[in-house]
Amino acid sequence: MSASAPTTPSKHYVIALACPDGPGIVHAVTGVLAHLGGNITDSQQFGDPDTGRFHMRVQVSADLDEPALRGAFAPVAQRFGMEWTLDELGRPLRTLVMVSRAGHCLNDLLFRTRAGQLPVDVVAVAGNHRDLEPLAGFYGVPFHHLPVDRSVAAGEPGSLEAAEAALLGLVDSLDVELVVLARYMQILSPQLCRALSGRAINIHHSFLPSFKGARPYAQAHVRGVKIIGATAHYVTPDLDEGPIIEQDVHRVDHGMTVAELQSIGQDVEAQVLARAVRWHAEHRVLLDGHRTVVFR
Amino acid sequence: MSASAPTTPSKHYVIALACPDGPGIVHAVTGVLAHLGGNITDSQQFGDPDTGRFHMRVQVSADLDEPALRGAFAPVAQRFGMEWTLDELGRPLRTLVMVSRAGHCLNDLLFRTRAGQLPVDVVAVAGNHRDLEPLAGFYGVPFHHLPVDRSVAAGEPGSLEAAEAALLGLVDSLDVELVVLARYMQILSPQLCRALSGRAINIHHSFLPSFKGARPYAQAHVRGVKIIGATAHYVTPDLDEGPIIEQDVHRVDHGMTVAELQSIGQDVEAQVLARAVRWHAEHRVLLDGHRTVVFR
Amino acid sequence: MSASAPTTPSKHYVIALACPDGPGIVHAVTGVLAHLGGNITDSQQFGDPDTGRFHMRVQVSADLDEPALRGAFAPVAQRFGMEWTLDELGRPLRTLVMVSRAGHCLNDLLFRTRAGQLPVDVVAVAGNHRDLEPLAGFYGVPFHHLPVDRSVAAGEPGSLEAAEAALLGLVDSLDVELVVLARYMQILSPQLCRALSGRAINIHHSFLPSFKGARPYAQAHVRGVKIIGATAHYVTPDLDEGPIIEQDVHRVDHGMTVAELQSIGQDVEAQVLARAVRWHAEHRVLLDGHRTVVFR
Amino acid sequence: MSASAPTTPSKHYVIALACPDGPGIVHAVTGVLAHLGGNITDSQQFGDPDTGRFHMRVQVSADLDEPALRGAFAPVAQRFGMEWTLDELGRPLRTLVMVSRAGHCLNDLLFRTRAGQLPVDVVAVAGNHRDLEPLAGFYGVPFHHLPVDRSVAAGEPGSLEAAEAALLGLVDSLDVELVVLARYMQILSPQLCRALSGRAINIHHSFLPSFKGARPYAQAHVRGVKIIGATAHYVTPDLDEGPIIEQDVHRVDHGMTVAELQSIGQDVEAQVLARAVRWHAEHRVLLDGHRTVVFR
Repeated sequence: MSASAPTTPSKHYVIALACPDGPGIVHAVTGVLAHLGGNITDSQQFGDPDTGRFHMRVQVSADLDEPALRGAFAPVAQRFGMEWTLDELGRPLRTLVMVSRAGHCLNDLLFRTRAGQLPVDVVAVAGNHRDLEPLAGFYGVPFHHLPVDRSVAAGEPGSLEAAEAALLGLVDSLDVELVVLARYMQILSPQLCRALSGRAINIHHSFLPSFKGARPYAQAHVRGVKIIGATAHYVTPDLDEGPIIEQDVHRVDHGMTVAELQSIGQDVEAQVLARAVRWHAEHRVLLDGHRTVVFR
Repeated sequence: MSASAPTTPSKHYVIALACPDGPGIVHAVTGVLAHLGGNITDSQQFGDPDTGRFHMRVQVSADLDEPALRGAFAPVAQRFGMEWTLDELGRPLRTLVMVSRAGHCLNDLLFRTRAGQLPVDVVAVAGNHRDLEPLAGFYGVPFHHLPVDRSVAAGEPGSLEAAEAALLGLVDSLDVELVVLARYMQILSPQLCRALSGRAINIHHSFLPSFKGARPYAQAHVRGVKIIGATAHYVTPDLDEGPIIEQDVHRVDHGMTVAELQSIGQDVEAQVLARAVRWHAEHRVLLDGHRTVVFR
Repeated sequence: MSASAPTTPSKHYVIALACPDGPGIVHAVTGVLAHLGGNITDSQQFGDPDTGRFHMRVQVSADLDEPALRGAFAPVAQRFGMEWTLDELGRPLRTLVMVSRAGHCLNDLLFRTRAGQLPVDVVAVAGNHRDLEPLAGFYGVPFHHLPVDRSVAAGEPGSLEAAEAALLGLVDSLDVELVVLARYMQILSPQLCRALSGRAINIHHSFLPSFKGARPYAQAHVRGVKIIGATAHYVTPDLDEGPIIEQDVHRVDHGMTVAELQSIGQDVEAQVLARAVRWHAEHRVLLDGHRTVVFR
Repeated sequence: MSASAPTTPSKHYVIALACPDGPGIVHAVTGVLAHLGGNITDSQQFGDPDTGRFHMRVQVSADLDEPALRGAFAPVAQRFGMEWTLDELGRPLRTLVMVSRAGHCLNDLLFRTRAGQLPVDVVAVAGNHRDLEPLAGFYGVPFHHLPVDRSVAAGEPGSLEAAEAALLGLVDSLDVELVVLARYMQILSPQLCRALSGRAINIHHSFLPSFKGARPYAQAHVRGVKIIGATAHYVTPDLDEGPIIEQDVHRVDHGMTVAELQSIGQDVEAQVLARAVRWHAEHRVLLDGHRTVVFR
């Protein structure tokens, strides 16, 4: 820790960065932090030989306010051509959760958030059905009903376009930083995917790339697999092809019905999604082409 | 146990059967066994509502020789239209292992067999390369070199056809009951697949149906999955689509190279294959359409 | 299925039984069911060579009411000295959940019950603290506050004895069939353990027999284990030594604090407890000495 | 990479260090490496708040021979009071494997080593029985028979003391860097444990701290656990209490005999031991009190 008298109380920050790989990056980053009297409490690096990209996440405590740290770090970021974020460690991310009828993921996210296990602030739940309005209400989160009827003409109330416009309106007006598709059973338009690029996480109820598309548990049952899984990924216009953040699996056997696979799978979905949301909110996930680097 | 004087010492048998589902099957099966003075030591049943097939595996100890038991069981089998096998429990299955250059699965199978963990008798190893001849030799198993050169005309020595004919010759002359493709890197002809139907097991180095075809670890690396796996399945003419017997997985991360995925995956492959071979040899695997019922 | 005209609509039953092992049990059981025109839809058996006990669980659909089936089965049960239960398949077990302050297990049990994944009817939640009263309320379940102050003299309100008497009163008045200790942080008296024998399930927050007693996550952290777990077991007077129903684990690493172990462990606890409760409620768990047989 | 003309071809090194935590360590370490023109290819750090120790592992490629790098690094190591090692990345560690009769771990280690998956050079196998001499011979590794008869007086041939003296003789004469107890069924004397401190790894056939001592699978069977495991740890005079390097588990059920638990457990043992040996040989394991930091 710095010996100098603190001008502000010590704060804990996290910096996540990516840039073209090359010598001297770690030394330059740690140098600027050392110069500011910061104390590095955690740091991880990864250079990807395939993409030539270098990734780093560093936690630092320092007697500085955020603008000062940002200002001091900017030159080194510019020198190496970094994409970077700087945040106060543990600051809850303003999050909007999209749902349809199945509540297991929403219930899990809200319970964990209240228990202090997820550094997010769920500012709204939006659903194309009203089934989960009471659950949101129990946790004191406003619920927005955004019905989607694909037979309604674009622009009319209830159309896909109207629902997506309303959603973007919520994102803007509520300063939403993260959108979580918690078993939201509607396909987003390519435009919306692009608008939310890098800040929308979906949970797919299969072990991708197995069983893309609809009804993956029924597909898994037909194929007779012995293990099922779930996949959390960033949303991209290319359906079920976004960068994978986390996956997990559970063993099944020949005696299980599609409904039992579904029930087992829902546990996996909720946990995989919660881990992905937590890691994203803690700035542990960096994009590396169409893959992710996850500093756990 | 029977109160009557035994005409032969008590023996332990396993019966595996499948037939159209309906009432009275279990009672009829246990009835014939009880009538013979048999003692049921283990029994499992499964009726598949999708296919309408009933499956059963029963272990029984009895003071009867095999032909007598077979004769007594045949009428009930016929009555219900059963496909069935009857074997002495633990009798080692005569097994031929096919290999190419990678030895991890062969090494695992031979070590387990010698350790008494696999009820098989490896009567031959056949390879399209000679790399694993010393390993087979260490375990005292004859090695057969069956080179495959796809540029050689059919019927000429070294052609695919010649290799497959030699293989079938081995199967016949050695009374082979089970063929294990232990990372045999050649695609079998549809005719050979059919000839070995239900008695050839392959290990695929991915978590099927993900990453069918060639170089699955490279595919997995490109896609950025967080878990890799392996799949043991019966060989069918439809490549990588045979009934799945067993699967398992291992967690990986962004920092691992294709070679590291391969190395981790080889552990999974060897174990998944060993389990599939053991269950098959213990008559625990029954076909149910293009899925399997596994009575573990 | 029976060809005779049904006197009652067809019902689905489950029979679970244990008795001294010997020949003819399966045949006798299936015989009485076949004689009644019942159709066996699932059946599992296990004879334990260590204890000499035979265990069986059988599902049967039949055109009989429960007293008739019970009457028909009683003679065979008596003949073999069976301990047995007969229940309608899927009938929800009347369940009381005991809690303290941590809500993850209660939240999980209530959510699953409402989602139709647990065949229980939570008729009451009882807690020594009031923290979880709102959660119970959200699911429409009455909450009973049973404060425990070990400094209060036995017999006075607020004493352990008073709380346990009130608990037993609830069990009686509500016809409770199953008591679930969902992270209830009080040690039950030996008398209460005996009174609830075989119908009380506890979740212990470690992989027993590792880290018995208090603060298992802190113990695990000190010992530097690489995997943590949780254990669901029947409650016995011998603390943390009751028959184990289910266990599961999760990987941890050196960088995790006790709080992080706790957070990871809570996921495992909730799932392990839910599985144990489901299997118990489906009559899949049979006692076999101080172990369990679990027919999954 | 350095722009200056290389005086030696570029080499890849790994430095592992531990010291009292404090500010400036990472910057100082990366500074000396940057100054030498080194390129950091991988780096991990961990500061343990419990012990106040900082741990770091860094891989660096540089146009320097090892003495030069060592000389340049020594001052910074001294300044922070570091315990440190510097090695060429991937240099095989000279390893002696101790065995008794069970060959699964030895077979696994030798096969992996030949397959290039373990950076060790097995310079000798020593056993108190001769059973595994042929297996060592197949891999071209000298076998040393060190019989142990606890009824023989200390100092006489065949005594524990004589065997341990012979073992230490091998360690000295063969420049052994790592001793692996691959199911060596003898308890080492406290003196030998101390002599090999930090460079002897044992595999214990249970999920420690469960089932310490003898016959853990029999203990697990009696207790009725649903999961078994294995633990690799550094050898210390305090039996089964050494710092844990790695653990893993496998699910079991009520129907499995002790022999089946043993067979399943052997797979886990071999894999856990192989991972521990690999991580140790890659300088990924650092001692942190009686725990380990594992930079995977």
